[in-house]
Amino acid sequence: MRGMGLRVAVYGGSGYTGGELLRLLVGHPEVGAIQVTSRQHAGSVVGEVYPQLAARERFVAPDEVEVPGLDVAFVAYPHMESAAVVRELLGAGVGLVVDLSADFRLGDVAVYEEWYGPHPAPELFGEAHYGLPDVFGGANGKRIVANPGCYPTAAILALAPVVERLPVSSVTVNALSGVSGAGAKATQKTHFVSANENVAPYGLSGGAPGHRHTPEIEEMLRRVEPGAPAVTFVPHLLPITRGELETIVVHLEDGTELPETGDVLGWYEEDYGSWAFVEARAEAPQISHVAGTNRARLSAAVDRRAGKVLLFAALDNLLKGASGAAVQNMNLALGYPESAGLEHLR
Amino acid sequence: MRGMGLRVAVYGGSGYTGGELLRLLVGHPEVGAIQVTSRQHAGSVVGEVYPQLAARERFVAPDEVEVPGLDVAFVAYPHMESAAVVRELLGAGVGLVVDLSADFRLGDVAVYEEWYGPHPAPELFGEAHYGLPDVFGGANGKRIVANPGCYPTAAILALAPVVERLPVSSVTVNALSGVSGAGAKATQKTHFVSANENVAPYGLSGGAPGHRHTPEIEEMLRRVEPGAPAVTFVPHLLPITRGELETIVVHLEDGTELPETGDVLGWYEEDYGSWAFVEARAEAPQISHVAGTNRARLSAAVDRRAGKVLLFAALDNLLKGASGAAVQNMNLALGYPESAGLEHLR
Amino acid sequence: MRGMGLRVAVYGGSGYTGGELLRLLVGHPEVGAIQVTSRQHAGSVVGEVYPQLAARERFVAPDEVEVPGLDVAFVAYPHMESAAVVRELLGAGVGLVVDLSADFRLGDVAVYEEWYGPHPAPELFGEAHYGLPDVFGGANGKRIVANPGCYPTAAILALAPVVERLPVSSVTVNALSGVSGAGAKATQKTHFVSANENVAPYGLSGGAPGHRHTPEIEEMLRRVEPGAPAVTFVPHLLPITRGELETIVVHLEDGTELPETGDVLGWYEEDYGSWAFVEARAEAPQISHVAGTNRARLSAAVDRRAGKVLLFAALDNLLKGASGAAVQNMNLALGYPESAGLEHLR
Amino acid sequence: MRGMGLRVAVYGGSGYTGGELLRLLVGHPEVGAIQVTSRQHAGSVVGEVYPQLAARERFVAPDEVEVPGLDVAFVAYPHMESAAVVRELLGAGVGLVVDLSADFRLGDVAVYEEWYGPHPAPELFGEAHYGLPDVFGGANGKRIVANPGCYPTAAILALAPVVERLPVSSVTVNALSGVSGAGAKATQKTHFVSANENVAPYGLSGGAPGHRHTPEIEEMLRRVEPGAPAVTFVPHLLPITRGELETIVVHLEDGTELPETGDVLGWYEEDYGSWAFVEARAEAPQISHVAGTNRARLSAAVDRRAGKVLLFAALDNLLKGASGAAVQNMNLALGYPESAGLEHLR
Repeated sequence: MRGMGLRVAVYGGSGYTGGELLRLLVGHPEVGAIQVTSRQHAGSVVGEVYPQLAARERFVAPDEVEVPGLDVAFVAYPHMESAAVVRELLGAGVGLVVDLSADFRLGDVAVYEEWYGPHPAPELFGEAHYGLPDVFGGANGKRIVANPGCYPTAAILALAPVVERLPVSSVTVNALSGVSGAGAKATQKTHFVSANENVAPYGLSGGAPGHRHTPEIEEMLRRVEPGAPAVTFVPHLLPITRGELETIVVHLEDGTELPETGDVLGWYEEDYGSWAFVEARAEAPQISHVAGTNRARLSAAVDRRAGKVLLFAALDNLLKGASGAAVQNMNLALGYPESAGLEHLR
Repeated sequence: MRGMGLRVAVYGGSGYTGGELLRLLVGHPEVGAIQVTSRQHAGSVVGEVYPQLAARERFVAPDEVEVPGLDVAFVAYPHMESAAVVRELLGAGVGLVVDLSADFRLGDVAVYEEWYGPHPAPELFGEAHYGLPDVFGGANGKRIVANPGCYPTAAILALAPVVERLPVSSVTVNALSGVSGAGAKATQKTHFVSANENVAPYGLSGGAPGHRHTPEIEEMLRRVEPGAPAVTFVPHLLPITRGELETIVVHLEDGTELPETGDVLGWYEEDYGSWAFVEARAEAPQISHVAGTNRARLSAAVDRRAGKVLLFAALDNLLKGASGAAVQNMNLALGYPESAGLEHLR
Repeated sequence: MRGMGLRVAVYGGSGYTGGELLRLLVGHPEVGAIQVTSRQHAGSVVGEVYPQLAARERFVAPDEVEVPGLDVAFVAYPHMESAAVVRELLGAGVGLVVDLSADFRLGDVAVYEEWYGPHPAPELFGEAHYGLPDVFGGANGKRIVANPGCYPTAAILALAPVVERLPVSSVTVNALSGVSGAGAKATQKTHFVSANENVAPYGLSGGAPGHRHTPEIEEMLRRVEPGAPAVTFVPHLLPITRGELETIVVHLEDGTELPETGDVLGWYEEDYGSWAFVEARAEAPQISHVAGTNRARLSAAVDRRAGKVLLFAALDNLLKGASGAAVQNMNLALGYPESAGLEHLR
Repeated sequence: MRGMGLRVAVYGGSGYTGGELLRLLVGHPEVGAIQVTSRQHAGSVVGEVYPQLAARERFVAPDEVEVPGLDVAFVAYPHMESAAVVRELLGAGVGLVVDLSADFRLGDVAVYEEWYGPHPAPELFGEAHYGLPDVFGGANGKRIVANPGCYPTAAILALAPVVERLPVSSVTVNALSGVSGAGAKATQKTHFVSANENVAPYGLSGGAPGHRHTPEIEEMLRRVEPGAPAVTFVPHLLPITRGELETIVVHLEDGTELPETGDVLGWYEEDYGSWAFVEARAEAPQISHVAGTNRARLSAAVDRRAGKVLLFAALDNLLKGASGAAVQNMNLALGYPESAGLEHLR
């Protein structure tokens, strides 16, 4: 009986990550009652609004959630809207809040405000754990888990083992993402006719790359290796629904010997071998290898002619890049096996 | 009356570039009788085999072409099969051969043989003009025009004005191409189910990038600036039919001041302003801006935080990247306006 | 010089049909100055707003159009918005108005009002010619040409020759359309993630088929054969950008002998052989055979086991189903060759 | 430990249905050791050949399968290749063979031979159960379960409750299928460039519909109601990977009163309410509602104007249309819950 397990709430259940999360939680062996919010669909059965979800729960308005007794809350709100809800939930005594927005990812309020704007709850800034467990471990008692951005997840997984071991002088992340990454809002950019048979670079402003995932990647690499360089990040929108591929160009400091491809794969194995959802292979990953799974796949190639290292990372932006990771974070924070409820996504 | 114009032959009319070429030539105001070959479909009416082409010509076997009297021959064969046909056509007195294969693109037989294999007609190596007119002008009396590769076309158009003006120390070309670029042969890679909802890096071998368009890009950049660096070239297969986008990362030699984005756009205007099919814009190009046209679109962005220049190029791999360019090359070689027969593709 | 040709205006230039029309008119040999309206983009250069269009014209607001001296106006507005503009243009003396909306397609105000709502200019109802020339000929002096709906174009082309010759007792049109048919407005339905990897029947309401193209098909078939039956019309949205395929099931009255497939193809040849853009083939048409062209392709199959005739029709919804047809209608109304400006789309 | 459960073999593990089946069996709670065959990939680890499958099993050649001790064998071979293997497995004492080919679906050898060719094991014809449990129940002791075709599954689910209750005079099935339904073989038809941005009717021969799923649908409807009419079946290939939608047109005998839409939905509820994977809804089903699940979704609409009933059915051709159904059939034959191993696909 679901009623016997964890009491869980999903704020923002009508977006893509909220919907995906709901699907995972419904099948999670430890999860009991689920509350899910949607202003727009309050009162309706989830599976009638979203026929691809079998869930029989009803959407409630955010202020209808029964907060007392909640074990875990997931907040799938846009950045700058999330923080206030997180504060409220912590104040009401919820034991664990997994925030899928960008609000608690960065370690420095000033950097947040430079890239996003005024932060709604700066006093909580230090209370969050950056939830990329495969690199930074579990929450270790912190009550906020900041679920990483999808692009940073792929980039940090590929880069962390390298910047830790080699003197890297330049990093360029060429990222390709499916349209679900752009959110459920209907815009000209997400119109089928605009996105189909097209690829569009984005996140450029004033003739310079400026996507907000840039400081997140930089900060996390510098947690691993303080001397890590600034990162150039260029995302592109692809005509697919889900999945993300990053092709990352790494330059080493002058005079550094290039590694062998096998060295890099070995480092991945060393660092990620004990984690369930990160794998390295000699073959370059493709989006179809990971779409619909919670796996991240990594690979590397070394260009001796031109003196560079190429890293490749692929994942499903809605799973390992968002909702799958959120469940993994909950599992680790609460002491369940990392893969609980995610076994069929390995 | 078509009978009154140029007498033209297309060798290899059943591939994608051959078919596209045929479509352009049928509508070309100067072209008269067209012969088109296909071993497989000899005897059949083109428009019955390929219902999307209205052409009423019949395919003939290659040895049935009436060579005497031909004004122009286009050879759309795979590399290493093309050269022998080109030799034969020149020997038979054909005035102009536009070769769409890689056989006469490079200037150095040794480089060709390193990347492709034994060359079937090395004695003709010096008689070819590299047909990227927007950079290298018209054929100027040479009887072979080597039509450039689709990836090199985009890369060289974006890079030539920059390597000519700035001391470039590193070039990485991230290329994204539609599946028509992989050819008409049915393979696991081109199966809809493999390519759809996927993106796959390719051209990697033994853990290193090794696509054959690499030396072509390098050589042409060195014709422009002998000190141009080795090029890292990483192509990816996209789930679209046509079109190509390159996001190119350029590092300058230490101590060089970064240009403004507007400087780069200005150089493009300077170098390409008088050519019909190359345009620069402040906005990054998208594949949908050029698919179905003979245009190449260029743009640039400067990452001051990380000290790099990004260049963007988009074109239709079957038009400006192949058959449209072939017609442009024919026009220039024969003294017609550059855009003859291509007006509706501007 | 364009200034010397027809003076033309396109109302509603920022929708898909308006944009496509503009592209055709820019290349039309008889067209001179083009005015094009967009409330949203007034003042901007067309080719900057829509980089896939090379047009250098500037959008103007609708009330900025210089109406006096206009030879032709095209109105690409939604139904019920179009009629008022048409009335105004006729009042101002414009010689020919091609209306791409549904406002003047039907012959009976009551039927219009049943399916659409109150008609803004019922007094003009009788002054329009239904612009499917391949069946109903040119405008023959009428100043309004009602450009047909895309679905009715395919259905009537396939059905008219059959209902004229055989006693048809039942017609079911299964229609499949690309997303451009749903218009440029960004909605949940046209969101890439909704439409991709999906097919959705639509136009059903209250458990019954109710798409507004139904009465248009019925009326035109009854102009050909007054006893033609009611039509069941079931459209589906497909994950492609352009193109439309109809698979039509025809039952004959009891006791009628089924025709041979070749008979039906022969009737098509008889009725359409002298028209440029309708073709019949033994092979069933596919959307890729006609996308990007102004052609309609027809075919037939006879199911003797089950006693039915199947008809197939394919066309490009933005060309033969909208803007290509509009140009064809203009050509015929003004005495130009049917294919003027459309030659490259055959 | 997997070793403790059912011993299972999958013949033909490198096709799409075989691969999907493997994925389901790996996660099935009752399944232990799995053997999987592939001539081409014998010796390789499944997950290395097909990186989207995490399976660590190794492919074996068909004659390397350890048959003694097998509890269940699944045969995912083409029709006419399957029957001989099925015979051999039964002869070796395997308790249950689920055949995913067409070889044992029909009840009459003569009909099989008319549509397919000489049957390799006609003596087994009567020993098979047609495995559409939602209509025909479990295998009830028969050792061969003939897994239904994907198209017949959708058609029979939608039609059986109707032909049982109303005098149906005509049935036309318009079917739309993703490309995975055409199999893993690389052909011109399955080439990305052929299938993308296209829809193609198929299964027509000599100007008449002739797809082999026709007699399967007819026979099963006649098991439900001996007077059911011949079926017109027109499949179309869609540019999506998985999923199938059928829009079915039903005429009733003259003078029969049309049902209400709600009547039809009620019959579905009556007949399928106790089965896990068939659902009826007022809203027409879309492929995205069922892709990736084992659900079939049904709906209906009544066209009173034209006197017809429309039925809609959608399912995932690789799951409810093939491998999901195969697991469901195994579950029922062996007395497990219908949904065992399929819970996450509801």
